[in-house]
Amino acid sequence: MSQLRKDPIVGRWTIVATERARRPAAFVDPKSTVTDQKECPYCQDTNSPSVYEAHGVKVINSNDPILDESKPFERRGHGLYDVAHSYGSHEIVVETPEHIPNMADLSSEQIKAVFQTYALRMQTHRKNPFIEYILAYKNYGVAAGSRNIGHSRSQIMAVPVLPMRVQDKISGAEKYFDYHERCLFCDIITQELKSKDRVVAQNEHFLVITPFASRFPFETWILPKHHHCDFAEGIKGYEDSLAAIMKDILLRFKIGLNDPAYNYMIQTSPVKNPSSFKDYYHWHIEVMPRLTRVAGFERGTGFYICPIPPEMTAAFLREVDIHA
Amino acid sequence: MSQLRKDPIVGRWTIVATERARRPAAFVDPKSTVTDQKECPYCQDTNSPSVYEAHGVKVINSNDPILDESKPFERRGHGLYDVAHSYGSHEIVVETPEHIPNMADLSSEQIKAVFQTYALRMQTHRKNPFIEYILAYKNYGVAAGSRNIGHSRSQIMAVPVLPMRVQDKISGAEKYFDYHERCLFCDIITQELKSKDRVVAQNEHFLVITPFASRFPFETWILPKHHHCDFAEGIKGYEDSLAAIMKDILLRFKIGLNDPAYNYMIQTSPVKNPSSFKDYYHWHIEVMPRLTRVAGFERGTGFYICPIPPEMTAAFLREVDIHA
Repeated sequence: MSQLRKDPIVGRWTIVATERARRPAAFVDPKSTVTDQKECPYCQDTNSPSVYEAHGVKVINSNDPILDESKPFERRGHGLYDVAHSYGSHEIVVETPEHIPNMADLSSEQIKAVFQTYALRMQTHRKNPFIEYILAYKNYGVAAGSRNIGHSRSQIMAVPVLPMRVQDKISGAEKYFDYHERCLFCDIITQELKSKDRVVAQNEHFLVITPFASRFPFETWILPKHHHCDFAEGIKGYEDSLAAIMKDILLRFKIGLNDPAYNYMIQTSPVKNPSSFKDYYHWHIEVMPRLTRVAGFERGTGFYICPIPPEMTAAFLREVDIHA
Repeated sequence: MSQLRKDPIVGRWTIVATERARRPAAFVDPKSTVTDQKECPYCQDTNSPSVYEAHGVKVINSNDPILDESKPFERRGHGLYDVAHSYGSHEIVVETPEHIPNMADLSSEQIKAVFQTYALRMQTHRKNPFIEYILAYKNYGVAAGSRNIGHSRSQIMAVPVLPMRVQDKISGAEKYFDYHERCLFCDIITQELKSKDRVVAQNEHFLVITPFASRFPFETWILPKHHHCDFAEGIKGYEDSLAAIMKDILLRFKIGLNDPAYNYMIQTSPVKNPSSFKDYYHWHIEVMPRLTRVAGFERGTGFYICPIPPEMTAAFLREVDIHA
């Protein structure tokens, strides 16, 4: 029979198919990425000046920005509604000068430069007193919400409000800490390392698991083994290790699942009052291939059905030969 | 410039594109629904007995159930995790004996029979002491998470836990009530009827709006004008009106947006302790065409970008000639 599993962080229940689960191979789908270099805006010399540039990584302002820092942030009422002009910053991180679509095919050195760039941009944006949260994320492939350009890139958004899921995670981690006086994420790491059922890969500093109450097939989390609430500060000294584990998991997706679309999101702490949650929040990265459509009731209720248990996807990903 | 808008119920912020918004016509996409009657399992005589049958509507147990009522519900710990066998009931509502794909093409009488069926099944399931919530919803079209069978149907799930978004809505409505001593949804109805900017359609008993902080293009809510927390009790005497407004909005989608995939979810109150939230919760239906892919950071953070303002989608839907 299937199981109901509760995410220990946000309290969300997922139905996880077990006995009648689909097989991992059922999710492998042929992929077609257009990589026509002639039309790639990130290969061509552009007039838009870069915001930051180092080690082949270039940060540019989005040429179709949905956020704007030119006016100060101000919330106002509109009857019973709250509204503000869409204050903030929206940057594109062009991860390589070469026309390479998938981050999995960048060198570990190049991936390291990308993560260092996120950290530096976060350090800059957090000086802006209007900014509450900084999102660094990647959409790879059309099914992941990306335009089909075929040049590896990611995005950084600095926003003046706290996103809902971030707030949920912080509240959940705080409740756990209040009771146990321990970090929930550290306890998850201990339990997962002991059982090994959901461990996909690890190195000295990072652990990759498929979470117990996975929402999506092949959902994975990269967890730093050392406790730190903040990505930008927490990766210091661990950049090589993080780049290596990211390349490892992205190669497992690419080889094992036939180059699927995927997203990753860095889940770091809010910008303000870091001392208030430094003991109980623990930064991490969610990495999710986009293999299924989310149906209506999942979107409407926050109640998910995962058609394959995470123990099965972890075993599948562990077996992928990334050195082939 | 774009706007940041806050959903007054759950507190979720959405970026709503305004000046640089996409035009409504950009979302109109040709549609291909396979409606091969020979392979339709809902047209053929089936050995699975119906759970309920009346007015051409037939409720059957899912032949691929992900929930099961045969063992009592029991939660248990698994280290720090919570798990339970996937207790509950999963039913398919076959809405018509005819092979008609889209509910928009059913008669109002037939749609009324579908909603009455939901109400009756909810009344039955809520007698089960393990059940906390009953979800009635529809996935229409492959992009909405449905198999491509082409026979109008919907689903009812009775689950032993409270879905996360339901809890969020209840908490938000409770906070508003604690402060104002009024129902938040009733206040939304008053404000929307006054401004008319986001009104798509209405009749004596129901109002259809595009919500102020829409997450998705053409997202709509059907709100009963009379306050009631519970769908099954609240529709009594208003069934004809509800069927008429549902057919109205589904025809606007079908004609205006070229037969898009869509979902609807009935957002009713939890099964237990209805007296605790009867003053502040207000049942409603979310109806959402599936026109765009949700990108990574939206899925990971609960922070949405809506590429077109709801005032523009409401105006577009108002103009659709459903009697053409």
